Amino acid sequence: MIKLVERLEHLKNKLVEMSSLVEVGIRHSIRAVVQKDSGEAEEVFKNEDRINSIELEIDGLVIELLALHQPMAIDLRFIIAVLKINTNLERMGDLSVNIAHNAESLVGVPTGTPVVDVPLIAGLVGSMVRKSMDAFVACDVDLAREVLASDDAVDSLRTSCYHELVSFMEKDRERIKPALSLLAVTRNLERLADHATNIAEDVLFYAKGIDVRHVSGTGSRTGKL
Amino acid sequence: MIKLVERLEHLKNKLVEMSSLVEVGIRHSIRAVVQKDSGEAEEVFKNEDRINSIELEIDGLVIELLALHQPMAIDLRFIIAVLKINTNLERMGDLSVNIAHNAESLVGVPTGTPVVDVPLIAGLVGSMVRKSMDAFVACDVDLAREVLASDDAVDSLRTSCYHELVSFMEKDRERIKPALSLLAVTRNLERLADHATNIAEDVLFYAKGIDVRHVSGTGSRTGKL
Repeated sequence: MIKLVERLEHLKNKLVEMSSLVEVGIRHSIRAVVQKDSGEAEEVFKNEDRINSIELEIDGLVIELLALHQPMAIDLRFIIAVLKINTNLERMGDLSVNIAHNAESLVGVPTGTPVVDVPLIAGLVGSMVRKSMDAFVACDVDLAREVLASDDAVDSLRTSCYHELVSFMEKDRERIKPALSLLAVTRNLERLADHATNIAEDVLFYAKGIDVRHVSGTGSRTGKL
Repeated sequence: MIKLVERLEHLKNKLVEMSSLVEVGIRHSIRAVVQKDSGEAEEVFKNEDRINSIELEIDGLVIELLALHQPMAIDLRFIIAVLKINTNLERMGDLSVNIAHNAESLVGVPTGTPVVDVPLIAGLVGSMVRKSMDAFVACDVDLAREVLASDDAVDSLRTSCYHELVSFMEKDRERIKPALSLLAVTRNLERLADHATNIAEDVLFYAKGIDVRHVSGTGSRTGKL
């Protein structure tokens, strides 16, 4: 019989494989928006099936592991964290697909419509996603806390983008549709940041048994916009 | 020691308690939008802490149960389903809070801005949420499949609302902000429907060991708008 420790290692590797695909997808989706390049959007759609199939594979591995072994304490917390991170990563894959669709509706739109702070927000969100998974791999509590601390910056950048885009819309009705697409991009980016925050919370729970969800000051997943 | 069967029953009751609070929150949030009533929005905010604390309680019960018992087959699938449904319900609570915030930004706006098909979409989504939890309680596969079948109707209603609201925005710049709030409401409603779909998928997995995620024709969680 395969040892518990080997099964846990295999599970971790699968989750890392999935997160690499998700990160690649996010990068392509942002390039699709900024460069108005539908080829980059296509790259995102190509990855979707693989991400979905790893999600199912990981859930299957978890159930097998729980049925065959009796993991306790930190191992059990690790497994629960994997299950939750798995769901988050799959949703993040969906969000990069949403961004790629938003990008497609911007292709061919006159360059007069600026992409405002989208690259800035995307850079911050990309770094949160990377750090949250690095924190998981290294079981690094400090890095997980860094991710939680970044969430408010994303929210505030998105709010300023929102007001800027609304004022474009009010000035020129031709800009309403492209501005709506860019609003959707910033919203999807904010949701990506929320998922990175969820992953960081799962890492803290797994590493220390600390549950920081719903503690004030660790970011909020509700938004007014 | 408390028996496994009693622990499972307790877990189910907790989840049902949580879903009742979430359903009440959704109803208040929709009334807040349709009646432009900030008192109804307040009712939603009141519930939030209780929902969050039940989420933590349920995760704790699941971990205790996995550590103390060795659930197998359908019991193990039930527990995994509870863990996933728990996450979905908490997010649904967040979405009703989002809708209540959207409603607040509509209070005092001239009644010339119609709420389009929001009540219709809300009725459909409310029914999906109720059916998904009824399917869970009764372990009813047919009812779960009904929920999956409704998701496309919500997506298509939302798409037609989107086009209607964009045309309001293009006609009158004074309508841009309220139309953006209503667009946000329909988007949050669609996400509620997605979560009800997730719950129905979890019920199918628990009841039959069938995994219908990522099978075409069972609804999609990615959206172009």
